[in-house]
Amino acid sequence: MCHAILLVSCPDQKGITASMTNFIYENNGNIVHADQHIDEQGNTFFMRLEWSLDGFDIGKEDIGDRFKAIANKFQMTWDLSFSDQQVRMAVFVSRHLHCLQDLLYRQQAGQLSCEISLIISNHSDAKPVADHFGIKFLEIPITEDNKSEQEEKEIKVLNEEGIGLIVLARYHQIFTQNFVSTFHNRIINIHHSFLPAFAGGNPYLQAYEKGVKIIGATSHYVTEKLDDGPIIEQDTVRISHRDSLEDLVRKGEDLERVVLSRAVRLALQKKILSYSNKTVIFD
Amino acid sequence: MCHAILLVSCPDQKGITASMTNFIYENNGNIVHADQHIDEQGNTFFMRLEWSLDGFDIGKEDIGDRFKAIANKFQMTWDLSFSDQQVRMAVFVSRHLHCLQDLLYRQQAGQLSCEISLIISNHSDAKPVADHFGIKFLEIPITEDNKSEQEEKEIKVLNEEGIGLIVLARYHQIFTQNFVSTFHNRIINIHHSFLPAFAGGNPYLQAYEKGVKIIGATSHYVTEKLDDGPIIEQDTVRISHRDSLEDLVRKGEDLERVVLSRAVRLALQKKILSYSNKTVIFD
Amino acid sequence: MCHAILLVSCPDQKGITASMTNFIYENNGNIVHADQHIDEQGNTFFMRLEWSLDGFDIGKEDIGDRFKAIANKFQMTWDLSFSDQQVRMAVFVSRHLHCLQDLLYRQQAGQLSCEISLIISNHSDAKPVADHFGIKFLEIPITEDNKSEQEEKEIKVLNEEGIGLIVLARYHQIFTQNFVSTFHNRIINIHHSFLPAFAGGNPYLQAYEKGVKIIGATSHYVTEKLDDGPIIEQDTVRISHRDSLEDLVRKGEDLERVVLSRAVRLALQKKILSYSNKTVIFD
Amino acid sequence: MCHAILLVSCPDQKGITASMTNFIYENNGNIVHADQHIDEQGNTFFMRLEWSLDGFDIGKEDIGDRFKAIANKFQMTWDLSFSDQQVRMAVFVSRHLHCLQDLLYRQQAGQLSCEISLIISNHSDAKPVADHFGIKFLEIPITEDNKSEQEEKEIKVLNEEGIGLIVLARYHQIFTQNFVSTFHNRIINIHHSFLPAFAGGNPYLQAYEKGVKIIGATSHYVTEKLDDGPIIEQDTVRISHRDSLEDLVRKGEDLERVVLSRAVRLALQKKILSYSNKTVIFD
Repeated sequence: MCHAILLVSCPDQKGITASMTNFIYENNGNIVHADQHIDEQGNTFFMRLEWSLDGFDIGKEDIGDRFKAIANKFQMTWDLSFSDQQVRMAVFVSRHLHCLQDLLYRQQAGQLSCEISLIISNHSDAKPVADHFGIKFLEIPITEDNKSEQEEKEIKVLNEEGIGLIVLARYHQIFTQNFVSTFHNRIINIHHSFLPAFAGGNPYLQAYEKGVKIIGATSHYVTEKLDDGPIIEQDTVRISHRDSLEDLVRKGEDLERVVLSRAVRLALQKKILSYSNKTVIFD
Repeated sequence: MCHAILLVSCPDQKGITASMTNFIYENNGNIVHADQHIDEQGNTFFMRLEWSLDGFDIGKEDIGDRFKAIANKFQMTWDLSFSDQQVRMAVFVSRHLHCLQDLLYRQQAGQLSCEISLIISNHSDAKPVADHFGIKFLEIPITEDNKSEQEEKEIKVLNEEGIGLIVLARYHQIFTQNFVSTFHNRIINIHHSFLPAFAGGNPYLQAYEKGVKIIGATSHYVTEKLDDGPIIEQDTVRISHRDSLEDLVRKGEDLERVVLSRAVRLALQKKILSYSNKTVIFD
Repeated sequence: MCHAILLVSCPDQKGITASMTNFIYENNGNIVHADQHIDEQGNTFFMRLEWSLDGFDIGKEDIGDRFKAIANKFQMTWDLSFSDQQVRMAVFVSRHLHCLQDLLYRQQAGQLSCEISLIISNHSDAKPVADHFGIKFLEIPITEDNKSEQEEKEIKVLNEEGIGLIVLARYHQIFTQNFVSTFHNRIINIHHSFLPAFAGGNPYLQAYEKGVKIIGATSHYVTEKLDDGPIIEQDTVRISHRDSLEDLVRKGEDLERVVLSRAVRLALQKKILSYSNKTVIFD
Repeated sequence: MCHAILLVSCPDQKGITASMTNFIYENNGNIVHADQHIDEQGNTFFMRLEWSLDGFDIGKEDIGDRFKAIANKFQMTWDLSFSDQQVRMAVFVSRHLHCLQDLLYRQQAGQLSCEISLIISNHSDAKPVADHFGIKFLEIPITEDNKSEQEEKEIKVLNEEGIGLIVLARYHQIFTQNFVSTFHNRIINIHHSFLPAFAGGNPYLQAYEKGVKIIGATSHYVTEKLDDGPIIEQDTVRISHRDSLEDLVRKGEDLERVVLSRAVRLALQKKILSYSNKTVIFD
């Protein structure tokens, strides 16, 4: 059965939850999940409301219109989606393919409710994987000189393909501000360190040389500033002096896979609200 | 500012959340936290609702009466409490004092919003600690022969002292069914293993002999069946063949402290709903 | 450069380490790793010694013979291997293919120094995976009636193929005592729970119904007693009341992959010594 | 029974382990623990050797002299200690007393084999705790103007008291280079973040504002550069958007206690070798 999902944020005041849950009840909906959070510093209210459309009085195409009165009253930023919409996802990757393969495996296993429609790379390494899974593959090499031009190509094809979510599965190119703002809050990256530690290049080497006893991985939305967008998910694993740089890479890649796939899953389930460079995760 | 907290469970149906949040809104309350959960197998609805009484139209003493109409309509099991009520807590302990000391430290540090009113032990070891903190101490030795009699004494003093929560901080006696049912869902135990593994006596020795690579601690409500009540909180720590039995005890005690104090804090904040031998934790 | 690896256990006494390291030194070897452990309860000495054969005076084929004098003197149980020996591995699997796929991926990525020579299943599901990787696949259905007979077939082919390590990657059949003792300390299983909790069938369902707050996975050597052999590796992940049985399976499978592959890697690197139903792990 | 412990580092070459273990064997010692590590990048050999002096032919006072021949041959940096030497420890603390109290508790419980001889603070808050435990307390306020002068006082008393290990248990003053170099590799600090993230002041606030999903604590040796010395131990705990800054502090303090006490224990057991701003931990 199809569910509707509302993600909402607005200045906190009395009556928001009552207004929203009444809207569902009066139209014969059945709430399946309701999560709210109040950021006391910013006096901001956040809510995720998921309800079954079985017997709901309002047709899918009219729900947004009918909800507008409440949204306007409380000055809400809001997003309405439906569980039967399959998001079309594009994966960008360079030469490390473990995260790409993991996403493909999970999508096949039914863990990620999306369609993986497109794989883009600045190298050709991922082509056999794309072919094996029957997914469109574009090799778009990037140099300092052609970056803007190539990104225009990418934006064009991403729009043509109706891509709703872009996942950077170890894509080692920095996008221009233009690209990032075109897909605001729709680009998820995996960084192979426990951010904000070891931002930038070669984080495993940085960690190895620093001699940390724990390494991590971080999945975050991409913003204009490198490795600095709102963090969605992190995890860590213990290491020791016995671990070589190669061991760090191996252990870290296990983390990357899990952390990135959790973040992508949360995004697909519409469980993330980002605000002022942080996230609320309704899991 | 005083908050009211409602914990509710009932058969799931349409309109529960709307009715409850309307009740708050129509009486000028401001919801601070609202969490709900639906157990789909049992078709059961759970909710924790916390709202500020600042400007609320109904006086504290009348809220329960006024809420009854909603509660009855949805056949709710419910519990109303207020954030300014200091629960009076009793700690039972035998000869390992680390959990007791930790609870006392946290209460002093303001992490546990309660009054520790009474310490009861079947040994005298804890007396100096109780004295140092100025807390009433009762030594009540237990033998097979005198258990029922001694428990009657305990029940009497617990009632006289108005104890709302009993914490077994490594108390190595098994209560009779009579005692347990007298304080249903009000006795929290720490068991020094990852339950259901290693229930019963000497779990560290059991773990050592089994050669596990991870040990744990479990905090749970006490029921008639030993080490089998609804689990509130668990945590684990990695060990190796290099760890002696003594090392397991040391590492495990660090877990016990943290796991027990988290469970007690959740109980004091009215964040636990237990049902059919499981718990819903609204943290 | 090829390394030699000695795994040794014997009653503890003075001079063992000196004798062994002298043996290496006097023959111009360079020790790369040396780990030892003494089990004080059993007064047993364990050692793993790895040295470079670059410039070593004794040829590979003679090292064992020459070492025998020391081994006999200290009544050692010992195992000599070489880093350039590729172990031939067989994977048994039923219908859940995630662990099999993970092992194949890691072997390809160079994380497991072995050859995966054979996949055996009581179902046909894994055949396409085996075909894709070009690995010999045998479907050997098991019933109560034909088990002994079918195991004879399996033993025959495992011997013919020179299999040194058998990995049960979610193989849901219980072997006879005959099979297990034929491959003593050479069968590694993954059990999808935090053993000894939830041994036997359907551990995720058991965990779900028990309401634990943490689930785990365990890799162990297979012995005659079900899910009871020496534990090699375990790991855990936190869950909550919000997790459905399906969520437990998904989170647990991520653990299974990591835990099984760590155990297999340790076995291939000759880092495991098992004794009296426990293991010493020299990692 | 008293054990001797040798910590050794030197350029790697053949025969080191054999020479050292022979030294023990030929003098009738029984090795209890032997750990070694080779840093391949730096071609450096590290060893920790612990043996029982029961029946050892050389008297404690002569062991160093007799070992010198081996040490010189291999150009070793080495440190000899005995398990019956009680290190005298000083604790520096400011106003957060949880780590101090934890160290005192563990010392009493027999987990830290040392004498806590002195507590120094720039405030008076810790005095009652010091009095309760009967430990000498010095209040030495620090200003920008008097820092060098006050540190001279501290160095004097630390030397007079024969202090072997200085623990900064949340001491919020930065030492001068003079003080740090006087106690090279003998000052252990706890920093309340996952270093190198959030070095400097108010790390919990930094973490809160960054919106990380995991926080950590780090124990390290103090060097001239703030929060940058060799890391001994780290640990992490998961947080969420629901955690207030106060929650981060509470959860983080639980980590601080465990991480600091582990590091102090490792130092007292002579299990730490530091080199080129990293540590080898023989645990």
